[in-house]
Amino acid sequence: MIDLYTWTTPNGRKASIMLEEVGLPYTTHSVNIGKNEQYEPSFLEISPNNKIPAIVDQDNGRALFESGAILMYLAEKTGMLMPEKDRWDILQWLMWQMGGFGPMLGQAHHFVHFNPDASEYARKRYAAETERLYTVLDDHLADREYIAGDYSIADVATWPWASRFEWQKIDLDEFENVKRWYLAIAERPAVQKGYHVPKFVNEIPMP
Amino acid sequence: MIDLYTWTTPNGRKASIMLEEVGLPYTTHSVNIGKNEQYEPSFLEISPNNKIPAIVDQDNGRALFESGAILMYLAEKTGMLMPEKDRWDILQWLMWQMGGFGPMLGQAHHFVHFNPDASEYARKRYAAETERLYTVLDDHLADREYIAGDYSIADVATWPWASRFEWQKIDLDEFENVKRWYLAIAERPAVQKGYHVPKFVNEIPMP
Repeated sequence: MIDLYTWTTPNGRKASIMLEEVGLPYTTHSVNIGKNEQYEPSFLEISPNNKIPAIVDQDNGRALFESGAILMYLAEKTGMLMPEKDRWDILQWLMWQMGGFGPMLGQAHHFVHFNPDASEYARKRYAAETERLYTVLDDHLADREYIAGDYSIADVATWPWASRFEWQKIDLDEFENVKRWYLAIAERPAVQKGYHVPKFVNEIPMP
Repeated sequence: MIDLYTWTTPNGRKASIMLEEVGLPYTTHSVNIGKNEQYEPSFLEISPNNKIPAIVDQDNGRALFESGAILMYLAEKTGMLMPEKDRWDILQWLMWQMGGFGPMLGQAHHFVHFNPDASEYARKRYAAETERLYTVLDDHLADREYIAGDYSIADVATWPWASRFEWQKIDLDEFENVKRWYLAIAERPAVQKGYHVPKFVNEIPMP
């Protein structure tokens, strides 16, 4: 049994989609970041960076934070979505998501979507970086169905961030390979279920 | 033999310090990002995200980009700096560095150091996030010598970003655990050598 501490954000959805994909039983604990619940001492014990998601594996008592580490852990625990033959290709793209297609898109959410008047300079900076990252992904997917071999944790990590394309003011029609990849993954039952953990906010955005 | 494509940045220094730590022979190839050499087609073949560092392992022909993946790869190849007993603790903190203490400090370099007049809003935002991340690290190091057990790739990943404390306008005297950790690692011969790859820019900054 896995305890999942999460909220309805791209990083949170990585973990819930992964748990649905691998079929492990899990108990969801909502950490409402809109109410600053991530700062409660009991959560800090598990996640010293005050961020969701985090898990506790009741099979061995292990607590783990950082979505990228959680995906790797669940992949190794179950032997799913990180096959040995593509492991380094998967891990380099997982790191690409963790370091770029995530943190930088998060800045676009802040400056492009939520606070477009805070700084025109910053808005343009993060809009441009978002475009660049989508271009890298689109070029990479031009001759591949998924990011690294078969559907893997590299896709599980990246897809929830792409699902915020509206906030990012990204027109997926301009990134046809990303769009094809996005729509294929959106049809997966585990994605359709994991997207709505810990609660329903909206249907999966469709381009 | 490892081919290392790098430049004098925190992410580049992660890779060169790691190569010095594990003692693998390597050939350094400078990719001068000040001259946009990261956009040359030959480099793109190795690093589709146009970023340094990247490596090619001539033992097996494998190309790898993203500093976090490179650290993991070199740790597994040599059996060094990622012991099994602390592996998940190391990986969660490696991901913390890749997703936060790196991308967000990079934004501080941009808005606090290089372009302090571009946006007061953004400058304050990234200065505050930088303070927050140093506080998380300082609290974590209060009862630990290194980030996750013994000196590991979690430290190799994090230290080069802390070495830009001047650009970040961070006073390490306010983070005494980070300062102690920083100074201890700065004394390592591999760090003193790897810091100056591919060339000497300045001595290691000392608080």
